[in-house]
Amino acid sequence: MTIQELKNHFNEEVEISGFVDEIRNLKWVQFLVLRDQTGKVQITIEKSEEKNKELVSLVDSLSVESTVKVKGKILESPKVKMGGMELTPNDILITSRNQGELPFNYKDPSTVNLDTRLDYRYIDLRSEKNLLMFQIQSTLVRYMREYLYQEGFTEIHTPKLLGAASESGSEVFEVKYFDRNAYLAQSPQFYKQMALAAGFGRVFEVAPCFRAENSNTSRHATEFTSFDVEFSYINSFHDVMDLEANMIQYAFEKVHDLYGDTIRDVFGMELKVPKTPFPKMRLSDVYQELEERYGYHIDDSEKNDLTTEAERLTYQLAQDKFDSEFLFVIDFPAEKRAFYHMRDENGILQGYDLIWRGVEITTGAQREHRYEEIVRNAKEKGLGDDVKFYLDFFKHGCPPHGGFAIGVDRITMLLLGIPSLKETQFLFRGPNRLAP
Amino acid sequence: MTIQELKNHFNEEVEISGFVDEIRNLKWVQFLVLRDQTGKVQITIEKSEEKNKELVSLVDSLSVESTVKVKGKILESPKVKMGGMELTPNDILITSRNQGELPFNYKDPSTVNLDTRLDYRYIDLRSEKNLLMFQIQSTLVRYMREYLYQEGFTEIHTPKLLGAASESGSEVFEVKYFDRNAYLAQSPQFYKQMALAAGFGRVFEVAPCFRAENSNTSRHATEFTSFDVEFSYINSFHDVMDLEANMIQYAFEKVHDLYGDTIRDVFGMELKVPKTPFPKMRLSDVYQELEERYGYHIDDSEKNDLTTEAERLTYQLAQDKFDSEFLFVIDFPAEKRAFYHMRDENGILQGYDLIWRGVEITTGAQREHRYEEIVRNAKEKGLGDDVKFYLDFFKHGCPPHGGFAIGVDRITMLLLGIPSLKETQFLFRGPNRLAP
Repeated sequence: MTIQELKNHFNEEVEISGFVDEIRNLKWVQFLVLRDQTGKVQITIEKSEEKNKELVSLVDSLSVESTVKVKGKILESPKVKMGGMELTPNDILITSRNQGELPFNYKDPSTVNLDTRLDYRYIDLRSEKNLLMFQIQSTLVRYMREYLYQEGFTEIHTPKLLGAASESGSEVFEVKYFDRNAYLAQSPQFYKQMALAAGFGRVFEVAPCFRAENSNTSRHATEFTSFDVEFSYINSFHDVMDLEANMIQYAFEKVHDLYGDTIRDVFGMELKVPKTPFPKMRLSDVYQELEERYGYHIDDSEKNDLTTEAERLTYQLAQDKFDSEFLFVIDFPAEKRAFYHMRDENGILQGYDLIWRGVEITTGAQREHRYEEIVRNAKEKGLGDDVKFYLDFFKHGCPPHGGFAIGVDRITMLLLGIPSLKETQFLFRGPNRLAP
Repeated sequence: MTIQELKNHFNEEVEISGFVDEIRNLKWVQFLVLRDQTGKVQITIEKSEEKNKELVSLVDSLSVESTVKVKGKILESPKVKMGGMELTPNDILITSRNQGELPFNYKDPSTVNLDTRLDYRYIDLRSEKNLLMFQIQSTLVRYMREYLYQEGFTEIHTPKLLGAASESGSEVFEVKYFDRNAYLAQSPQFYKQMALAAGFGRVFEVAPCFRAENSNTSRHATEFTSFDVEFSYINSFHDVMDLEANMIQYAFEKVHDLYGDTIRDVFGMELKVPKTPFPKMRLSDVYQELEERYGYHIDDSEKNDLTTEAERLTYQLAQDKFDSEFLFVIDFPAEKRAFYHMRDENGILQGYDLIWRGVEITTGAQREHRYEEIVRNAKEKGLGDDVKFYLDFFKHGCPPHGGFAIGVDRITMLLLGIPSLKETQFLFRGPNRLAP
């Protein structure tokens, strides 16, 4: 039985297990707090009762963070703040013993720097906040997937070991593969498109991506979990935006129902379920309004992409203009984007950035599906034999299609107001971090 | 709209898209067969009708495997074998053109060898059988996950880049990681246990695993998708078996409801929804019964593990003795198993193999969670500093726990009667295969 379930079993004999979260050994009574992944409960042992003699000496020998299995009666007890109940045990079994002082006090992580916390991540993750963070992340991904299943998507698992360095050779990890080299996938982009060229219609994948970027920022990691979506038979990239917005709304609503209060109480963030469709603005209009409304001025030469500062300011703009935390920015010049994105006859990207709370969480687009055009685009970017295998996918018919990707760790950061990816990844990986 | 949905829209104007599967250009009429990921539909163009003039010449120029978007009226038509309906178009738009003859005829793959099919996997996957295979695989994984969510599990994403070679150094891929080496994870075993040591309670992960095994068999790949489960507060490894059996039953029932007929018709396999609990037999009893029932005799020295032949024969045994396709085999000697598996005082592994249809699909076990014991076990196996980071997880309390892993590609093989992993992986990876 989990601790959460206890409240449905008042006055029954129950058996629960967990970590010893706290021990208060008073003159007449011992209080234990037990915690599992669902909550905490107080265990009360009256020292005066003869039958408790063995329990009392067992608790005397017990240290916090050990694990125990407890049998006893669960009683409603309104005076106990912790769930309004307490457990009076008749048996306690110690299932593992904490071998000594913790490397740091995970209940007050401000006492150590982040690197120490990451060195002892198996301790750091014991905090309520961290456990909740991953439960919420799991729930978010669960319902993003559920939305897609309902919309007829198939989940695929594409290889991470590649024969060629693909997209951008400079940032790819090299693997010793028997008597040759392999490379780690930077994204499943080419292969999710392959699935569509093969007629899969609608696919998604949740999997690790690898980037050999030697940069140490709060938003970058050498390995991260990407939620990738790609689907066929679209009319334009507006179909891609609409599907993404609907998926986010669906999943956020579920997360809000299950964890909205927790997110407010523990993380101090307000999760608003967004309305669909999300507002859309042209890049040039964004810059015009940022200048008019907030006096943000930059040189025209920088206006072919969103600056970090402009990105940040769109949070205000989206709220003021649309009462929305989300904003699609469209009509980027295509020249800076990957060759497989579709552009119109004026070189305008048929794609978008999705900005949430002033941070880009997604780049999405219609893809170029026509063989002659994709071959020409690749040639323009100077891409040769490395992408030939990819170009072949389009040789024998491929439907119009598009897609997007969301970084799972990054959206968790924004959702819960966590300052760094280093904390929202289960185990962060960066240029200087491969352990534990 | 998908082709599957058409039957709910008879006599309406509809718009559908797909690949041109077949063209029959007769004297008075043109028939197109259009296919998408949900099915096929016949499109009928009467040549004599004046309004069809442009459509007729467009179809004259069209080649199979091109993609089109079609508007028209969908009519019930019992004489048409394909779904009892036909579409009379008033507009056809060619959205991509097949550039020429396919590298091979994917509708009759027997004309080429498997390597050719894998070289042109983007064509090979166009077959009905392959598309269905991945739709069924996606459905199976979906409902395995759903069962676990309902049971309070949290999905985690553990890193695939490791600082140390972990379990078995010989079969691990080496990655050039800036100015040092990293290694690719062979399994998430250590990290899913870390989550439990940190109090996550119940976790699972669906992710790639990497094995640098230079072997070319139908059951091995250098990269594969593993469905990994691990959970705390178990009383023994029987709890692990029970959860796995329940999960399989739940998911198989869903797959049976959705695809049972398809699996029979297209793959010639009968998907039986298993009853739980699955039968369990001791290894020694398996050998005794195999000898008594089927005259299978081997030397006692070989009886410390299941031979491949014994494994195969258990299919018959499980059916004859228990009317079951599944069989848990227990009571293996622990010495050949990994150091983190729990053993009893007689050296008996507190774990199991799950055999389905005569093939091992899972190894599961209770894990050693007690710090002193796991340190001793590691030392016995001669494991030193490489696993120290792992041993530390157990230092400050860790609940009793266990888990298992299922190879997604392998269970798909067995489910659909496919002879090789090379076909059930989206893109197979082996010592000689890194492309496309």
